[in-house]
Amino acid sequence: MALIVQKYGGTSVKDAERVMNVANRIVNAYKDGNDVVVAVSAQGDTTDELIEKAKEINPAASKREMDMLLSTGEQISIALLAMAIEKLGCPVISLTGWQAGMQTDRRHSNARIKRINTERLHDELDQHKIVIVAGFQGINSKDDITTLGRGGSDTSAVALAAALGADVCEIYTDVDGVYTADPRIVKNAFKLDDISYDEMLELASLGANVLHNRSVEMAKKYNVKLAVKSSLNNNEGTYVKEVEQVEKMLVRGVTRDNDVARIALCGVEDTPGKAFQVFSMLSKKNISVDLIIQSIGSEGIKDISFTVTEGDLDETLALIEENKDMIKAKDVKWTKDVSKVSVVGAGMVNNAGVATAVFEALYNAHINISMIATSEIKISVLVDRKDAERAVEAIHDKFFG
Amino acid sequence: MALIVQKYGGTSVKDAERVMNVANRIVNAYKDGNDVVVAVSAQGDTTDELIEKAKEINPAASKREMDMLLSTGEQISIALLAMAIEKLGCPVISLTGWQAGMQTDRRHSNARIKRINTERLHDELDQHKIVIVAGFQGINSKDDITTLGRGGSDTSAVALAAALGADVCEIYTDVDGVYTADPRIVKNAFKLDDISYDEMLELASLGANVLHNRSVEMAKKYNVKLAVKSSLNNNEGTYVKEVEQVEKMLVRGVTRDNDVARIALCGVEDTPGKAFQVFSMLSKKNISVDLIIQSIGSEGIKDISFTVTEGDLDETLALIEENKDMIKAKDVKWTKDVSKVSVVGAGMVNNAGVATAVFEALYNAHINISMIATSEIKISVLVDRKDAERAVEAIHDKFFG
Repeated sequence: MALIVQKYGGTSVKDAERVMNVANRIVNAYKDGNDVVVAVSAQGDTTDELIEKAKEINPAASKREMDMLLSTGEQISIALLAMAIEKLGCPVISLTGWQAGMQTDRRHSNARIKRINTERLHDELDQHKIVIVAGFQGINSKDDITTLGRGGSDTSAVALAAALGADVCEIYTDVDGVYTADPRIVKNAFKLDDISYDEMLELASLGANVLHNRSVEMAKKYNVKLAVKSSLNNNEGTYVKEVEQVEKMLVRGVTRDNDVARIALCGVEDTPGKAFQVFSMLSKKNISVDLIIQSIGSEGIKDISFTVTEGDLDETLALIEENKDMIKAKDVKWTKDVSKVSVVGAGMVNNAGVATAVFEALYNAHINISMIATSEIKISVLVDRKDAERAVEAIHDKFFG
Repeated sequence: MALIVQKYGGTSVKDAERVMNVANRIVNAYKDGNDVVVAVSAQGDTTDELIEKAKEINPAASKREMDMLLSTGEQISIALLAMAIEKLGCPVISLTGWQAGMQTDRRHSNARIKRINTERLHDELDQHKIVIVAGFQGINSKDDITTLGRGGSDTSAVALAAALGADVCEIYTDVDGVYTADPRIVKNAFKLDDISYDEMLELASLGANVLHNRSVEMAKKYNVKLAVKSSLNNNEGTYVKEVEQVEKMLVRGVTRDNDVARIALCGVEDTPGKAFQVFSMLSKKNISVDLIIQSIGSEGIKDISFTVTEGDLDETLALIEENKDMIKAKDVKWTKDVSKVSVVGAGMVNNAGVATAVFEALYNAHINISMIATSEIKISVLVDRKDAERAVEAIHDKFFG
């Protein structure tokens, strides 16, 4: 007998039929003799519909009231899922975030879980009930409802697994695991049996869209074994855990991220600390800068290029305009027509050949690279958006073809 | 400066426009220098939509999970209303039932309020915030969400007013007060300036559809002054309070109730305790019997007729069938084609002429009376449903014409 935490996303419970499907999966795990705790998201488009309702009344509503509103989405899901399990004849109880003891800090709309008071959870498990917990939400020290922001339900599930000492945390989604590349782009992409936390972190933050990086970080911190599976079939998924590195595991996946915009500050004075001034100006506004290139200065001037997410582009340009007297750029250029293509693999840190192979693959495909960044376990290149899918294919082919 | 509790029903907040309208009314009361606490229902059809979602999955869902589901309706309303008030620039906070300290017993779907822990409410009022509370819901001693059943939001409002010692509890609805009869039936019906709790109780339970009797009972018990007003205009409403009786106030209103069915047990043995046996059988199943007539027995047999609500008819007939060996009726007849028409007025207890006037009015209108019941402050008659509106008109005309 094991303690299993499962997480189902919004598409997995989008209508009555899908809710019954999920209920059956949960009941199967329970009937196999396991304790089962489930974190669930809001149904399909519920969250978007609630946001629409709010915007109609007050587009500048406080985050506290937005959390009050949005948390109803998951509350609806847990009640319906519990009803479906009741129908299947198993003992079950639904718990909101606050009932499940999900205590967070006070940051509305983007709260962090501080601790889980597991008393109620253990109580219900001791009564052999299946426990359905509202994902994405918690309660702060003022007894106000908070939400966890993007990827919140994944984070709820991992936090529950960590707090309860679960044997595994199964994340159910609409793909059946982590692939070497997006199967919609690369025909011969294949599913990985397992992947390390660090590799998954890079893949998650690079647009693999399977797991949110906050949840992977937490899983790594508390050593929670994750399984990424499909809620629509019974295929073996991908396990995310501490994987022992073996020599042959060089590259684990190739990803593309379109949520990127490039900004170039041209003809900036080449004085010490200029880049520092620019980037601290951005970080003060919580704008994350990703790739950075600084040209070698000549004749007292240089160019600084960097990327931000598309969502941060307007604010970044406004900040640059506000601070133009400090920055003193001759010209500011920007474009959204770029994509970041990345190769991830824990094994590549010791193998210079990986970068060479990436460049060779792109050269052979006649794809131009405008920026490059490397870390211990990844190499990212910025290419024109029109070339991005071809770039993923070419690199995937090079390593896995 | 006063402390005002207001209550808005589902139609008053059914869409963004109505929510803004209600927000404006609340802000006006606040800007007049009052402390304002508001209880609000779920928007328009939200509750019905949620019930539909549940039925699709499990028509026999537990009441505990139904409460979990349905309570989201009011939570959505309070968040949206708070956002609307934020837009108008006033300090505001929304509170769910549990956040507002609304503690109930454990009866899911029909819980009773046991006490209100007013600490948080006072905290927010001390910070000069408008406080928006989710009606219809509370929390039990297990920290589970409960709902209060029919008329629950009215009850929430009155309970808040009682617990906070409010100066008045204003119930906003789609009519602008309590009328002497339904204005849709009786053209010259007129609005009452005030009415006593007891009179309102009779009117509420007799189908006046303005206030639920649970809320009036609670208002009477805690001496909460109620005002029934329209959320769509600024007309003076009707006050419900301890009214000093003056001689001339005989009749306060005439009501019709179609939610009634008549059952006749014909040819029952005329033995002592027979009626007791029949009615205790019904009360054990929580079936309320209203009007009762027992014929004077002759030749050892008698007839027993009584009314129940339409909703209880099928269960009542089934019970009679199950217990036919005990009841030993020669025949069981029933009909839904009846209505109860009632005349209410605290003054009539001392005036036998009221009953005479009622009978005279119906006689002149050629309307047959099949059953009669009287209490200290009301006279009810059962008539054919097709005659009910004419009966209300005739009686209203007799007293107010």
